Amino acid sequence: MTASLPRVHGAEIELQTGGGVEIHDLTARVEDVVRASGVVEGIVVVSVSGSTGAVTTIEHEPGLEHDLAAALERLVPRDARYHHDERWGDGNGHSHVRAALVGPSVTLPVREATPVRGTWQQIVFVELDNRPRHRRLPVQVVGVGR
Amino acid sequence: MTASLPRVHGAEIELQTGGGVEIHDLTARVEDVVRASGVVEGIVVVSVSGSTGAVTTIEHEPGLEHDLAAALERLVPRDARYHHDERWGDGNGHSHVRAALVGPSVTLPVREATPVRGTWQQIVFVELDNRPRHRRLPVQVVGVGR
Amino acid sequence: MTASLPRVHGAEIELQTGGGVEIHDLTARVEDVVRASGVVEGIVVVSVSGSTGAVTTIEHEPGLEHDLAAALERLVPRDARYHHDERWGDGNGHSHVRAALVGPSVTLPVREATPVRGTWQQIVFVELDNRPRHRRLPVQVVGVGR
Repeated sequence: MTASLPRVHGAEIELQTGGGVEIHDLTARVEDVVRASGVVEGIVVVSVSGSTGAVTTIEHEPGLEHDLAAALERLVPRDARYHHDERWGDGNGHSHVRAALVGPSVTLPVREATPVRGTWQQIVFVELDNRPRHRRLPVQVVGVGR
Repeated sequence: MTASLPRVHGAEIELQTGGGVEIHDLTARVEDVVRASGVVEGIVVVSVSGSTGAVTTIEHEPGLEHDLAAALERLVPRDARYHHDERWGDGNGHSHVRAALVGPSVTLPVREATPVRGTWQQIVFVELDNRPRHRRLPVQVVGVGR
Repeated sequence: MTASLPRVHGAEIELQTGGGVEIHDLTARVEDVVRASGVVEGIVVVSVSGSTGAVTTIEHEPGLEHDLAAALERLVPRDARYHHDERWGDGNGHSHVRAALVGPSVTLPVREATPVRGTWQQIVFVELDNRPRHRRLPVQVVGVGR
């Protein structure tokens, strides 16, 4: 499948978060960016600029939001001792460690101008900082269009 | 290194899995997709459509399959309490949480029409659901060809 | 945003590591690769060839290097029993499991010939092997240029 025009399209998704472990479903907005990009076949990268949030996929329902938060609290507890907190005093050492483990971006195929994902698989931003944040998430679409 | 033709190629890798933590080596099949794509220099994205499996790289040998399963069981135990299970009753809350942590895709460079990886580093699908699944894994190759 | 020339550029970042959990900031060198690539708008993939290291982003400061190492030691302890070690005797079963969880690559948008990231968010290689390694990290830039 070879098309003629190489295309790269960039956009930002803006979010207001409340801090803590909070999952935001980005799927519809990523689909909008892809549709507007002119890319028919290619890939889409959804990323976070910042080191206390993460991007992944999950079935977005309240039960799993609670379960992922509980798992992260057990794996990287908020109240453990972090050298980061002793140096910088912002109390979010756990946020940085969690974000490095989950990861800063997700890349998915784009086909027929749509990100390829499962029916129950949403593209999500996970707020891991300990305070509300205004987030700007860069989305990049690369591929070929008509 | 600039070549003349932009290329995007998509394919699916199909798998039957047995459930539990099961590692499937995709390397040879991803290499076949890249070779067939016409892309000489670029990238390849291997992803999962679905929220109870993950894609990563590992040395694929039976000892590590056991070790990764044991680590995931310790980190996100199957028999812990998950709100997802109380709502949906399919008993795979642990699968969703594990999948969100490991991640839904891997992106690697393609050079000389081959994915770039280490000798002992295989591209793998990790089945995390609690039952056998038929999986279709989208593979996307983006780059330039001759 | 459509430009006329498709470009793919590959390079290697070489590193000497000391083993253990060691974080190496790759940001400046990735920026150099992107600048040299001729890609103005696109993406960059930073990966590791090898199954005992990982690529992610984190705020690179000594406190968090310690905190990430402590978290990984608690989550996947060096001295637990690994089937990998019983088969292969190199004592780095924990390194392989940690690397599969953190992941082998990071993909970020490129805009105005620069990787898009947060001010305090560095692109890092995490050495997870139990001995010093000479690493060659493939970096691939895909997009369009002038």
